[in-house]
Amino acid sequence: MKFVCSQSDLNANLSIVGRAVPSRPTHPVLGNVLLIADSKSQKISLRGFDLSLGIQTSFPAQVTVGGAITLPAKLLNDIVSRLSEGEITLSHDDEEGETDVEEGSIATLTSTSGRYQLRSLNAEEYPDLPSVEDGEALNLSIAALSEGLRSSLFAASTEESKQVLTGIHLSQPEAGHLEFAATDGHRLAVVQTMQEETEVESEETDDPFAVTIPARALRELERILAAHSNEDTLSLKFNESQVVFEIGDQRLTSRKLEGAYPAYQQLIPSQFSIQMAVERKLLISCLERVSVLADQKNNVVNFDLNSDDQQLSLSVDSADFGSAIESIPAQISGDSIVVAFNVKYLMDGLKALPTSEIQMQLNTPMQPIIFNPLGGVKMTYLVMPVQIRD
Amino acid sequence: MKFVCSQSDLNANLSIVGRAVPSRPTHPVLGNVLLIADSKSQKISLRGFDLSLGIQTSFPAQVTVGGAITLPAKLLNDIVSRLSEGEITLSHDDEEGETDVEEGSIATLTSTSGRYQLRSLNAEEYPDLPSVEDGEALNLSIAALSEGLRSSLFAASTEESKQVLTGIHLSQPEAGHLEFAATDGHRLAVVQTMQEETEVESEETDDPFAVTIPARALRELERILAAHSNEDTLSLKFNESQVVFEIGDQRLTSRKLEGAYPAYQQLIPSQFSIQMAVERKLLISCLERVSVLADQKNNVVNFDLNSDDQQLSLSVDSADFGSAIESIPAQISGDSIVVAFNVKYLMDGLKALPTSEIQMQLNTPMQPIIFNPLGGVKMTYLVMPVQIRD
Repeated sequence: MKFVCSQSDLNANLSIVGRAVPSRPTHPVLGNVLLIADSKSQKISLRGFDLSLGIQTSFPAQVTVGGAITLPAKLLNDIVSRLSEGEITLSHDDEEGETDVEEGSIATLTSTSGRYQLRSLNAEEYPDLPSVEDGEALNLSIAALSEGLRSSLFAASTEESKQVLTGIHLSQPEAGHLEFAATDGHRLAVVQTMQEETEVESEETDDPFAVTIPARALRELERILAAHSNEDTLSLKFNESQVVFEIGDQRLTSRKLEGAYPAYQQLIPSQFSIQMAVERKLLISCLERVSVLADQKNNVVNFDLNSDDQQLSLSVDSADFGSAIESIPAQISGDSIVVAFNVKYLMDGLKALPTSEIQMQLNTPMQPIIFNPLGGVKMTYLVMPVQIRD
Repeated sequence: MKFVCSQSDLNANLSIVGRAVPSRPTHPVLGNVLLIADSKSQKISLRGFDLSLGIQTSFPAQVTVGGAITLPAKLLNDIVSRLSEGEITLSHDDEEGETDVEEGSIATLTSTSGRYQLRSLNAEEYPDLPSVEDGEALNLSIAALSEGLRSSLFAASTEESKQVLTGIHLSQPEAGHLEFAATDGHRLAVVQTMQEETEVESEETDDPFAVTIPARALRELERILAAHSNEDTLSLKFNESQVVFEIGDQRLTSRKLEGAYPAYQQLIPSQFSIQMAVERKLLISCLERVSVLADQKNNVVNFDLNSDDQQLSLSVDSADFGSAIESIPAQISGDSIVVAFNVKYLMDGLKALPTSEIQMQLNTPMQPIIFNPLGGVKMTYLVMPVQIRD
């Protein structure tokens, strides 16, 4: 195998696929990245795979001898990222007869300034990415997918033990719409985005589309999408166990999360007796200040909605350290009420809401409270209040 | 006590003195910052002190009632840093008769948006900063002091057990010069700076000036100096146990480190048989790349000085991962030689050297090796080579 490519292409693509390489591989070859040089298409294809998440990309190169090898992903990335811009030559003697199977063979990377020899492992040991040939397929707009991920990913659970809650539930409540849902059991984010052109090519069933995808895989997808134009589309294919996203030459595969996703729509109250509109950034900055005192104790902040004064007061009272109170103007309809929140859950949602004005809706201090953006994307953030001690 | 000040003044000064407040105070009052409001001078003075390092600053305010209190340093800093710009009012009822000594009393901070009540502790419990009345005194130029600290602090030991090596040894080898020395036992940095106007007002002895000051205190001094003009001067006073730096209203005190500082000048060879001049940034970037492979093993990089080719080659050979070699042009006088370095010690020095071209001087692969800047500040960086295995 031998090819010449630009440092910037190799570097950019190694960074992408490297995200799917496990830091503690269960088998040595999984700590490597697979490089395939194709002399016909004059392209290099890179692959990383931790047996759950897989990422494959490709980029143009001058391939003089085709072939495939695997190289230590982190080491190769660390070297290539430190090289200055210019041409890089990678070569490897593919004559297997001379290779010691245990030790692997040697690949040589040459830059303008130096030469690196790295131990490679046999490409045949590297697993294939799962493929979905006869499952369902959708074309998604990158703009809609990015918007949905940005406003939901933060709310997924990060505790591996919570299984299906570590994913985003993606569904299609009606044609032309995509719904993203994420919850960790304490709060829930639901986002609906418009798909300008969606084609469902279901070959097997007419079931409504619904799939739960690990948040970790979708965070990598979000990173990949950021380098693409919002005008582009990508395809999503899935079967019983796998999902595959494809954008041009790039492909991301992930196992699906199994198990029934919570029936979250039932948690969202359909009517509210109290509503408040408030400036989001003003609310965030007040919350950041009063929560300095909440940090010292139980992380609880009181919201006092005063409909007579059309004013929201945030307060914290910590017997050991002191107390804080801040007030901001708000448009409140309904009775005055006092509710209490866990600062972290509230703040995460406020930061993810995409508009400058937001709405809070509630009934009693013990029922779910809803935050929505005023205008823009259709998003619902539900958070349970905490009980106020007497 | 009652005063009105600007958020930016209070915030900037709290950040400075907060650096001297211990995160785990041995006595509760040391976790606080001392605030003194002086109605005569219309100034607020702030103080932080961990019994070794002390910092005091002051800034203008409208003081309506003078007085002194202490407030939790981190809590106050966290709140004030999050407030938007504008006026802040701080008030405290100083009538001691009503104060519960155990619980402290309450101070109230009012901003445009809210009100914070914080528990204060009695100012009388707060220790005085050490003062040096009848010791020696020097006036130092900020430019020279900053330059000396920048090129020496990195080489001091960070291991508390190494006592005197955790400090910078400051001395005056001849009138008008300041010498900074730092070593952790593996490498040594010595910097000489010119003092344009130095006045030694020694009242007791005519001993040559020499003092070892904890690096931690000098890092805080460096931070304070960065906010001052290079044209300014500061005064350094010291006695048997303490040093005091004063710049305008700001004062930093520190205990001295006791014990004899190593006779480092004896370690620096006076003659060298081999000399090499090389571009510093080029050397650093090569070293960063080949050291990716050194990281995997013992952190050793070989330097091959080839005087015939006028070329320096850096190489690493790691049996498990592979090998790397990079070559750069160099002006070499003397015999060709191969020496080996620990990457970390070498890199620290190369990064601290202030010029674009540097000089390396050596005799044999087992004797101390010296790096100097070519032009600019007078700096010597000494590093011991590591033994090359056969």
